[in-house]
Amino acid sequence: MKKLILDLDTGVDDALAISYALGSPEVELIGITGTYGNVQVEQGVRNSLAITDLLGHPEVKVYQGLPHASTKDSFAVGEVSAFIHGQNGIGEVTIPDSKREPETEPAVDFIIDAAKTYGKDLIYVPTGPMTNIAAALRKAPEIKDQLGGIVLMGGALTICGNVNAWTEANISQDPEAADYLFRSGAQTTMIGLDVTLQTLLAYKDTQRWRDLGTKAGAFLADMTDYYIKAYETTDPLRGGCGLHDPLAVGVAVDPTLVTTLPINMKVDVEGPTRGRTIGDNDRLSDSVKTANVAVGVDVERFLNELMTRITALAQQAD
Amino acid sequence: MKKLILDLDTGVDDALAISYALGSPEVELIGITGTYGNVQVEQGVRNSLAITDLLGHPEVKVYQGLPHASTKDSFAVGEVSAFIHGQNGIGEVTIPDSKREPETEPAVDFIIDAAKTYGKDLIYVPTGPMTNIAAALRKAPEIKDQLGGIVLMGGALTICGNVNAWTEANISQDPEAADYLFRSGAQTTMIGLDVTLQTLLAYKDTQRWRDLGTKAGAFLADMTDYYIKAYETTDPLRGGCGLHDPLAVGVAVDPTLVTTLPINMKVDVEGPTRGRTIGDNDRLSDSVKTANVAVGVDVERFLNELMTRITALAQQAD
Repeated sequence: MKKLILDLDTGVDDALAISYALGSPEVELIGITGTYGNVQVEQGVRNSLAITDLLGHPEVKVYQGLPHASTKDSFAVGEVSAFIHGQNGIGEVTIPDSKREPETEPAVDFIIDAAKTYGKDLIYVPTGPMTNIAAALRKAPEIKDQLGGIVLMGGALTICGNVNAWTEANISQDPEAADYLFRSGAQTTMIGLDVTLQTLLAYKDTQRWRDLGTKAGAFLADMTDYYIKAYETTDPLRGGCGLHDPLAVGVAVDPTLVTTLPINMKVDVEGPTRGRTIGDNDRLSDSVKTANVAVGVDVERFLNELMTRITALAQQAD
Repeated sequence: MKKLILDLDTGVDDALAISYALGSPEVELIGITGTYGNVQVEQGVRNSLAITDLLGHPEVKVYQGLPHASTKDSFAVGEVSAFIHGQNGIGEVTIPDSKREPETEPAVDFIIDAAKTYGKDLIYVPTGPMTNIAAALRKAPEIKDQLGGIVLMGGALTICGNVNAWTEANISQDPEAADYLFRSGAQTTMIGLDVTLQTLLAYKDTQRWRDLGTKAGAFLADMTDYYIKAYETTDPLRGGCGLHDPLAVGVAVDPTLVTTLPINMKVDVEGPTRGRTIGDNDRLSDSVKTANVAVGVDVERFLNELMTRITALAQQAD
């Protein structure tokens, strides 16, 4: 069976990504590695432990990752992140803390070990900054050929960013790490704003979870409504909230949900367009392309898969 | 039969675009409209007249277009343009001036008249700034639905620009005009650096034209060699010169040469990324997409078509 590691800065759509993975019988979620971004790494780890408990999956181990970009000394949560995900990352909804602790093994070591253990069966899904995977690739470059693949949520190739006109939030936190990943030779599938801003959830969808009458359903509905409400301010014409992180999990489970462009990618790390994900002109004609960038998505099929999987999970979980 | 209008700032690859069109029995080149960019509009018109004469097609009418962007008072040829195309635009090769004059009808009026006369049979191929077509669409907006299509050379969606990291030369001359075109509702096919930097000509190819022993063959070989030599300085690792403008003509003749991404495009006209061609986030989920951006090209088939068509023309022409 396909094994997944989710690398999360556990905010709202990260929580939906966990739910999608746990609701997918085709894959086994073998661990969650924590990163920073929507929240501090400690808060994200706390959320991941509590959410997996609430969703009835306390067997999922959680590993704490690096707390900030290697080019920086610290990380502070941005105002916009707190507005979109709430101060606690999960839309100011209160759920019981887990009695579990994160594993003592650091996330970077767990990623390396898992790549060696599971090889081509392992898909690594980072939906925050690429800090952990870049560190793992620096420490053990051989895993690039051992891993089954990396399906990342981040960047924007054919449309504008969401931090500014050229930068997407995850990439903006650590452009150097994302650039390192794209140049490492590892095979990546990039699920960027190009497709995630086409897959939207609205209140009528979350109401289905609330109507289940379970704790898990209520949590998912309340948390996601906070996120939809934030979108009404930040992106009022969109008509819902972008399903960024769950789409990456969806594609890890079933790659046919998106159409992709094979291309060798890089990240601008200098100049005015710092943080832009863009094809590398110097590797334009290379016969080997290490990235597949999603440029189209079967919106209806994905939304149907998401609702079916998460609704079933939220019904069983309580 | 499909009718073509080429809108050219007749430099080297524009001359190859004329050759490709005249060497294509599937299409009739009904006129060339002149624009500025590689050279001043007057020099481009002079070149177009002389080249069509030399290639044995003095029946092709040439129309003078607008001399500069509507946002500017004048136009000066850039140093890099003069370096790549030569001061005279055709690689400092001397050919006889035509005895013909450009038509008295302005280019913008000719474009409008031709759209009304030929309708869906007409493909308009701008390979310089989008100044003339934007002016035509402002003057007669109805032609957007009358024209068979617009296949433009310009921009870069998935890779970096050639003026700077985000801007391509044609778009940089008149970002407002290109933005107007993309937002006009007219159906466009964008042939950008994404594909044109994959289609390269080298000295061994131009030698085939020289070996024909004709004046046309010698002209095309000498002119193109100047361009290839410039590329050795400006883009030393590329391995040849980019076939920008001829690829746009190639696609106008046979759209199957490229794979395209349907998307609603815009041009950044403000901010640090002025001149960038990028998908419009606000129209991301619109069911109608007005642009098809080429993101893949059958390099071998195009080069074969180009060499076959231009070589046959250069053999007959003298």
